[in-house]
Amino acid sequence: MTFLTDFKPTHLTLTEESPTFWRVTFNNPPINVIGLEMMRDLKAILTELEHNDTVNVVVFDSADPDFYIAHYDVMVDNDEAEALPKTDATANYTAWVDITVRMSKLNAVTIAAIRGITRGAGSELVLAMDMRFASLEKTKLAQVEIALNAVTGGGASGRLPSLAGRGRTMEILLGAEDFDGALAEKYGYVNRAIPDADFDDFVTHFARRVSGWEHQAIVEVKEFINKYTRLPDAEYPLHSDAYWAAVMNPAVGATVGRLLEGGMQQRGPLEYNLAEDIAVIAQDR
Amino acid sequence: MTFLTDFKPTHLTLTEESPTFWRVTFNNPPINVIGLEMMRDLKAILTELEHNDTVNVVVFDSADPDFYIAHYDVMVDNDEAEALPKTDATANYTAWVDITVRMSKLNAVTIAAIRGITRGAGSELVLAMDMRFASLEKTKLAQVEIALNAVTGGGASGRLPSLAGRGRTMEILLGAEDFDGALAEKYGYVNRAIPDADFDDFVTHFARRVSGWEHQAIVEVKEFINKYTRLPDAEYPLHSDAYWAAVMNPAVGATVGRLLEGGMQQRGPLEYNLAEDIAVIAQDR
Amino acid sequence: MTFLTDFKPTHLTLTEESPTFWRVTFNNPPINVIGLEMMRDLKAILTELEHNDTVNVVVFDSADPDFYIAHYDVMVDNDEAEALPKTDATANYTAWVDITVRMSKLNAVTIAAIRGITRGAGSELVLAMDMRFASLEKTKLAQVEIALNAVTGGGASGRLPSLAGRGRTMEILLGAEDFDGALAEKYGYVNRAIPDADFDDFVTHFARRVSGWEHQAIVEVKEFINKYTRLPDAEYPLHSDAYWAAVMNPAVGATVGRLLEGGMQQRGPLEYNLAEDIAVIAQDR
Repeated sequence: MTFLTDFKPTHLTLTEESPTFWRVTFNNPPINVIGLEMMRDLKAILTELEHNDTVNVVVFDSADPDFYIAHYDVMVDNDEAEALPKTDATANYTAWVDITVRMSKLNAVTIAAIRGITRGAGSELVLAMDMRFASLEKTKLAQVEIALNAVTGGGASGRLPSLAGRGRTMEILLGAEDFDGALAEKYGYVNRAIPDADFDDFVTHFARRVSGWEHQAIVEVKEFINKYTRLPDAEYPLHSDAYWAAVMNPAVGATVGRLLEGGMQQRGPLEYNLAEDIAVIAQDR
Repeated sequence: MTFLTDFKPTHLTLTEESPTFWRVTFNNPPINVIGLEMMRDLKAILTELEHNDTVNVVVFDSADPDFYIAHYDVMVDNDEAEALPKTDATANYTAWVDITVRMSKLNAVTIAAIRGITRGAGSELVLAMDMRFASLEKTKLAQVEIALNAVTGGGASGRLPSLAGRGRTMEILLGAEDFDGALAEKYGYVNRAIPDADFDDFVTHFARRVSGWEHQAIVEVKEFINKYTRLPDAEYPLHSDAYWAAVMNPAVGATVGRLLEGGMQQRGPLEYNLAEDIAVIAQDR
Repeated sequence: MTFLTDFKPTHLTLTEESPTFWRVTFNNPPINVIGLEMMRDLKAILTELEHNDTVNVVVFDSADPDFYIAHYDVMVDNDEAEALPKTDATANYTAWVDITVRMSKLNAVTIAAIRGITRGAGSELVLAMDMRFASLEKTKLAQVEIALNAVTGGGASGRLPSLAGRGRTMEILLGAEDFDGALAEKYGYVNRAIPDADFDDFVTHFARRVSGWEHQAIVEVKEFINKYTRLPDAEYPLHSDAYWAAVMNPAVGATVGRLLEGGMQQRGPLEYNLAEDIAVIAQDR
C-alpha cells in the first residue's frame, strides 16, 4: 500500500489481505469508543479509498471480541474533532457526519463484520456501510441517543428505513433497546446473523469473492443502488444539528456525568448493560 | 387528565397509566367494529393528543381477546360519520381518512397491541400507528376490501410498502387472506409477534420505557422518520374516493346483504372466518 | 382464448385454467434459457394481456423441475432480438427491457412460481412480476452479472431495493451467490418459500382465489401499489446501456467462451453450480 498522506494509525489497524481486499480492525481499548484518534485514522482511510481505484472491498472488524464499537467518546474535544481534515463537499459537516456520509459513498464495498457491542455512533457507522454481517451470539446493536434527549446525530433515522422499514425504525430509535443477532437479522438491521464459530470464515469468504470482480463493475452496481436507496447528503447535517442542540443541554450533561461515575467508557458492567442502565439513569429525574 | 372538550367515551376506555403513558382499550361488543361512536371517541382522543405535550406513548389494545377490531361498521350512516369533527387540515377528508391521517402524525408514540382479529379498517388503523406488536397465537390480520370490489379506503396501499415491501404488499391486498402472527412478523406487517403469555408484559414494558424519555426528543425522532417514510397526506383521499366509488355499486350492496344474512357483525363463525367466507360469498356470482 | 395475433408458442405453453386465470409454463430444453423464441412468445403474451380486461392472474411456472429459467441465452443474435415487436412506449428499449418493463405494468396479477434454478435474466423476470413464491427445497436464485464485469441489465438494482432493502440488495448484486428458498424468503427476494410437496397446491389455490375478484378492483389496487413502489420506466434503459457497454468488452467475451467450453447452456454440472463456477472462471485472470 502506498498512501497519499503519511498514515500511521494508532487506534485501528489496516491489513492488506490482497491489493483488492483491505481489512480495518478497530482497536481502541478498553472498549473501542470512537474518539479523536480513531476518527483521524478513519478519515485517513476514507481519503485513501476516495483516491483509490484498486480496492474492491473493505471489511471492518474489531480486535475486541466483546466490543465492536461501544459508542462515541463522550470526552472528545469538539474543537479538536472539527479540526480534523474534511473534503470540500463535506466541509460544513461535523466530524462525525463527514465520516458517515463519506463512508456511505465509497467505490469499494464496505462490510461491517459485527461481533460484540455496537451502540450509538458504532451502530451509525455500520449503518453507513454497504452491508452488515453479525455474530449470532455475540452482537448487541442499539441506538441509545434518546436517553440523552436526542435524535441520532449520524444518520440512523435516515438509513434504517431502507433496511428495516418504518415501524421497526420507530421501535429501534424510540425503544433504544439492545438488538441481538437474531432480532437484528429479523428486522433487517443486519443482513444476516452467522453462528459465531463460522463468522470469520463466512465474512472472509464473502469479501474475498467480491475482491475478485472487476473494480469498475462494482462501482457501477453501487451507483445504481445508491441512486435508489440513499438520501441526499444534505439531510445528514440536519440530524447532527438536532443532536448537538439537544445534548448541549445541562440536563444531558448531568446524565452523562452520572454515567461516567457509574463506569461509562470503562470495561465493566455499565458498558455491557448500557442500553438498560442508561434508561435507569436518564429517567431518574 | 384534563380534557379540552367534554370526553365521555362509550366504545373505548382511556386509562392513564401515568401522565406520559395512556392506554386506549377498544370496547364495542359484540366484535369491536368501528362504528360511529368509536370514531367519535377516537377523534376526541386524537384532538387531545394533538394539543398535548406531555403524553409520550399511547398503547391501543382491546377488551375482547378474540376481536381487536373486526372491521368498519357496515351499518354506519355516512352523513352522521362525516358530521363528526375534523381538523382544518383534514376538513375535506372522509371521517375515516381524517382519523388515519391524524393518527399517523401524532407527537406521542402510538403502539398497536394486537390480540385477536383485525381486518379491513382495523388493519388500516394499526398501519397508521407507529408500530405494531402482535400476539403470536391470537392474531389474524387481513385487508379484505378486494372482496367488495374495492381498494383499501384508509391507506393500506400507501402504508404497507414501507413495512412489507412491494411484493408482499401485492400479496396482502390482492390475496385478502388472514395473516397470523408469525407470518405477519415475517412480512413486516407487524414489528414482532410475541407469545401470548408474554404479550401484555412485553408491550407494557416497552411502552413504560418509552414513556420515560424527554417528550421533545420523541417528537424530533418521529419528525425525521416521518419525513423519510410517510407519503404526503394528499394521497390518502385518493384511496378513499376509489373505495367509496366501488362500494356504492349495487353488486357490492348485494354482497354485503348476503354477508349480513350470514352473520356479519355478529359474534359467530362468519366473523371468525371472514377472510374465507367473504371470498365464497363475493365470488358466488 | 381468442388472440389478437397469431399465437403459436414453441418455447412455453399457455394454459387457460379459467377465463380469468392463465398459466404460462416455460419449456425450452435443455435448461430453459431465455432465447429468441421464448422472448417472442413472452412478448406475444404481454401484448395479449395489455389488451385484455378479463384475465385476473397469470402464474408463470416451469416444465423443468430443476431449471425455472437458467439465464439469458448467450447465443441470441442481438439484431434478431431487437427486431421482435415492441410497444410505442418501449420502442427505444432493448428487447429485454421491453419485456421486463411491460411485465411490471400489466393489469393482471403476475405470480412467479419458482421451482429450480433462476439466475441472471431469470431472476430479473421474476423480479418484474408482482409477487414471487418459491419451492423451499428446489430454488436457487442469483444475479451473476458482476462475474461478467457488468451491472444487471434488466432492472434488478431498481427492483430489489423495494423488496429486500438497501443492504441486502448490495449483497445479492455484489456477492452474486445462490439464494436458496429459505434465505430468499428471509431477504424478501421472494414472498415466501413453500415446502415443495405443498408448492403447486399453494400457488394454484392463491391464484384461483385472486382470479375470482372483480377485474377492475385488481387494476385499481395495482395502480396504487405501483404508484408507490415502481421506479419511473426511464431508469431501466440506463441499466441496459451499462450492461451492454460492459459485456461487449473482449475480456467478457473470453469469459463467456470459457464458460461455453465448460458446459454453459448444457444440462450439466456447470449450470447447476453456475454461481460458483462463473466466479472461478471470471476471476482466473
